[in-house]
Amino acid sequence: MELHVKRDHSSSGQYPNRARMLISCPDGPGIVAAVSDFLFQNGANIVHSDQYTLDPDGGMFFMRIEFDLPELEQRLDELRDGFNGVAGRFTMDWRIINVSYKKRLAIFVSKEDHCLVELLWQWQAGDLDADIALVVSNHTDMQSYVESFGIPFHHIPVTPETKAEAEKRQLEVIGEEIDVIILARYMQIISPSFIEYYRHRIINIHHSFLPAFVGGKPYAQAYQRGVKIIGATAHYVTEELDGGPIIEQDVQRVSHSDDVNELKRIGRTIERVVLARAVKWHIEDRILVHHNKTVVFN
Amino acid sequence: MELHVKRDHSSSGQYPNRARMLISCPDGPGIVAAVSDFLFQNGANIVHSDQYTLDPDGGMFFMRIEFDLPELEQRLDELRDGFNGVAGRFTMDWRIINVSYKKRLAIFVSKEDHCLVELLWQWQAGDLDADIALVVSNHTDMQSYVESFGIPFHHIPVTPETKAEAEKRQLEVIGEEIDVIILARYMQIISPSFIEYYRHRIINIHHSFLPAFVGGKPYAQAYQRGVKIIGATAHYVTEELDGGPIIEQDVQRVSHSDDVNELKRIGRTIERVVLARAVKWHIEDRILVHHNKTVVFN
Amino acid sequence: MELHVKRDHSSSGQYPNRARMLISCPDGPGIVAAVSDFLFQNGANIVHSDQYTLDPDGGMFFMRIEFDLPELEQRLDELRDGFNGVAGRFTMDWRIINVSYKKRLAIFVSKEDHCLVELLWQWQAGDLDADIALVVSNHTDMQSYVESFGIPFHHIPVTPETKAEAEKRQLEVIGEEIDVIILARYMQIISPSFIEYYRHRIINIHHSFLPAFVGGKPYAQAYQRGVKIIGATAHYVTEELDGGPIIEQDVQRVSHSDDVNELKRIGRTIERVVLARAVKWHIEDRILVHHNKTVVFN
Amino acid sequence: MELHVKRDHSSSGQYPNRARMLISCPDGPGIVAAVSDFLFQNGANIVHSDQYTLDPDGGMFFMRIEFDLPELEQRLDELRDGFNGVAGRFTMDWRIINVSYKKRLAIFVSKEDHCLVELLWQWQAGDLDADIALVVSNHTDMQSYVESFGIPFHHIPVTPETKAEAEKRQLEVIGEEIDVIILARYMQIISPSFIEYYRHRIINIHHSFLPAFVGGKPYAQAYQRGVKIIGATAHYVTEELDGGPIIEQDVQRVSHSDDVNELKRIGRTIERVVLARAVKWHIEDRILVHHNKTVVFN
Repeated sequence: MELHVKRDHSSSGQYPNRARMLISCPDGPGIVAAVSDFLFQNGANIVHSDQYTLDPDGGMFFMRIEFDLPELEQRLDELRDGFNGVAGRFTMDWRIINVSYKKRLAIFVSKEDHCLVELLWQWQAGDLDADIALVVSNHTDMQSYVESFGIPFHHIPVTPETKAEAEKRQLEVIGEEIDVIILARYMQIISPSFIEYYRHRIINIHHSFLPAFVGGKPYAQAYQRGVKIIGATAHYVTEELDGGPIIEQDVQRVSHSDDVNELKRIGRTIERVVLARAVKWHIEDRILVHHNKTVVFN
Repeated sequence: MELHVKRDHSSSGQYPNRARMLISCPDGPGIVAAVSDFLFQNGANIVHSDQYTLDPDGGMFFMRIEFDLPELEQRLDELRDGFNGVAGRFTMDWRIINVSYKKRLAIFVSKEDHCLVELLWQWQAGDLDADIALVVSNHTDMQSYVESFGIPFHHIPVTPETKAEAEKRQLEVIGEEIDVIILARYMQIISPSFIEYYRHRIINIHHSFLPAFVGGKPYAQAYQRGVKIIGATAHYVTEELDGGPIIEQDVQRVSHSDDVNELKRIGRTIERVVLARAVKWHIEDRILVHHNKTVVFN
Repeated sequence: MELHVKRDHSSSGQYPNRARMLISCPDGPGIVAAVSDFLFQNGANIVHSDQYTLDPDGGMFFMRIEFDLPELEQRLDELRDGFNGVAGRFTMDWRIINVSYKKRLAIFVSKEDHCLVELLWQWQAGDLDADIALVVSNHTDMQSYVESFGIPFHHIPVTPETKAEAEKRQLEVIGEEIDVIILARYMQIISPSFIEYYRHRIINIHHSFLPAFVGGKPYAQAYQRGVKIIGATAHYVTEELDGGPIIEQDVQRVSHSDDVNELKRIGRTIERVVLARAVKWHIEDRILVHHNKTVVFN
Repeated sequence: MELHVKRDHSSSGQYPNRARMLISCPDGPGIVAAVSDFLFQNGANIVHSDQYTLDPDGGMFFMRIEFDLPELEQRLDELRDGFNGVAGRFTMDWRIINVSYKKRLAIFVSKEDHCLVELLWQWQAGDLDADIALVVSNHTDMQSYVESFGIPFHHIPVTPETKAEAEKRQLEVIGEEIDVIILARYMQIISPSFIEYYRHRIINIHHSFLPAFVGGKPYAQAYQRGVKIIGATAHYVTEELDGGPIIEQDVQRVSHSDDVNELKRIGRTIERVVLARAVKWHIEDRILVHHNKTVVFN
């Protein structure tokens, strides 16, 4: 179907020689000078730069730089090699990412379609600069819709008895090339080993303003408590249920006259907007995780 | 000091013959017809009317009517007597309030002044149509400021040992004529018997987006959890700490770069706005409490 | 395609005996009593009621009532006949609407798809309780997408020379049964006679926070002016360009670092949410127009 | 009055060796490297850094750096001298500001007090790290209130005939030491020569969401147009009325039932919050002006 072919106005196409550098290290004098001098000496031009120092916590330093470098593709290995010296001096955790490389997404979904539909719409509109490699679901409801975009759909049922086997099957279909997994209202608990394998690379949308209303039926809990504002939270998945690093949250005002169904209806729009923002920021390498919190440069 | 005299543009002065009627009862046919017919037969003109039916919960019906009635003052007793018939037919909880009667507020405060300053400013600007009868504090920091408005200030220290005695003293200075008590960052727990005496007439501001971060140091908790939005909650005080019916909440976006002090600074403005709204709605009889939730007609 | 069949959880199906009554008239004593008594005498049970009196403007009174009446379908003519007496007494403009009757929508679109996609998604999710009767476009981009929902798509090109003829053709394909026309980013000016025919029944989405940035290229204008917040406005179309009664607006914060393309991207989500809300409120008969303003009961 | 003495928890006191550097120049390779290397060579430690490149507009580059330098006070002249070399190489507009130096504010006010009260409250709470040197008013309403804070109050009446003379008198009382003038609802037009003298150093609060409702009575205009959201705008004053560079805006939702007085009441809280934010950002050197727009690093 013609419309569902992604239009080619992605930023990755726009900037063939653009790279991103992410750095975390203990703060100290000379870091910015060393990094920017290194890039300058190598002929790179910094186009964006953000940094943050976490004072109270032993002075961790976080930095995200976007730069342009002629013939980036060919020079990337050399650049990474060269940066090892700088990185070693400051005990850096670091990455240099080629913006032209499109991240590969796997989307997990159950029956509720709104988050999946939003991601596909934003992707097809060119707002998510990534490849959606496949969709995995424990139901078949979304199959024809997903396939109409030319995206492979894998139906992997999950029951309490077959859970381990189902995860094994999921890992098989995902393969080795997936950068991030999106739980777009996927209503199954992921096992600790699966989470560990994709640490800080699984994004979940929780339908409450965490840490309020952890666990199941958050809209029913919200109605019961009589809150005047509801929200949604996108976070990285960790072993602790709904306890992982928060990436993004948003809220909307409600009133006594909104029943549970109306809260769900309002919530659907918050959920899809919040999840899509979190995915976009992850794709654009804007998120650094430190302990159980995120630094988001945007 | 001249400025601190309240200017006379209160709505109570504007509408000398205006009254409000609040009704809660089981829903059933004919309620609106019976009430509006009663008012019409008595020569009243309805100027505002709100109603709400709580379907899932056995069909409770809630109504707030503002009406004008010539010579209201003289006719109010007769009107209330007359309404007893209607009320009995539908098993109503009801009140008729003379808008010209200004509610009397007692404000409790500890050391943080922002909520108190906001209430005094709004009152002095004519936005809170009530009398601030007195301020009670367990500290003396606010004394000269409060007294500069011509408002009596009572310093009643509270220690673990003198708590019961202090509450007794508080009840004495409050007297019998106080309609509502505002805890404007009053950092002491109120005893159950005190709460019972002023059931649904004590408004507290909690410095978090309840039910997240119940209890002490909510901004520290919020920082620790890494939330992207902080908030404040005004609620009626019940025996359960931070568990009473929520009247109003509001929020503001924060980021990783806001430390605990910055969260507190941002939070102060949310707290004072949220508390002032809740107080205004209470004063204007816009809030009906049902079980542990509020119906707010605004 | 199976997914695109609308699921049957519409409110119209839920409440087969529900009706809405909309009233505008000069204010005066006894209106609410007369209306509610009429409904009670006819066996109707009021489930929602909203009213508003426009004091400064000669005292216009507006009312929206939802009520349940057994055997509504059969009794509707009789009810309308009976209400003529009440209506005449108070010089009312009024309507009684059978909630089971689904309004029929025509959507006009040009090339940008986000508003159309949102409306179709909300409709398919059961959140818009109406029939989408047809889509009209001056381009063919959306044809296969629209037809995949089983909705007729009419391609009617518009050029300066063929404008009058194109409108004639539009009126033909719309026919007599359309309740409301949605301009979901339809980039053509509608002629005054067309507007007159569908007075207060054409809803447009303007991609700015009106009245700022009337006319073309509002995001470029917003960027040029350096505003810190952008918005969108849904309004009824009148002869004055972008000057009709405003139904709904919403906004989002932007910064100096958002260029025109980023403003457009952010704006798309505001536009689709604002338009969908306005359409929902129109469908649910929540909007009354008075002079060039709306009263929205929600 | 004891309360009105400013508490000493200002950031300027906290960081005696902190400075800020603001840079605007045409973008080009090596700027960040040159600046950060200069600071490193001089023993400074960068604690915050923000930068922005305005691509579409000929590539202007903007940067704000906060750094700590031991014995800053003594070394500042030498540092500025040294930086001239770097600055010359890149044609920079630049400033280095000693954070310990408190900016001196003059506040102009007419009769409406809410913006002045907010600024004084935030200042007294330690949230505005500046000195309020004096208040100028064309009325005497605020005199005793301002003087209770120990702040000099100058009553300078303005009539059409005495306007030029009044401005002369204003410039006299302001003197040479004022960094920024805040028009906190000062309802007089400032002359072009006065504006020129304090270019980008006069902040005004306009009580609408500019560019909507330029000029007088914006709340009446907003009511007339029937907008669903109102706002306020803080901007630098230029010769064009309400046309200067926008610093900050915020909004709040309103409804058909809010009359002009209610819009004003709601608006007062938006105005004071927006103005206070703009003043805080100006004080903290977060704002760079380019053509008629602001870059705000926050």
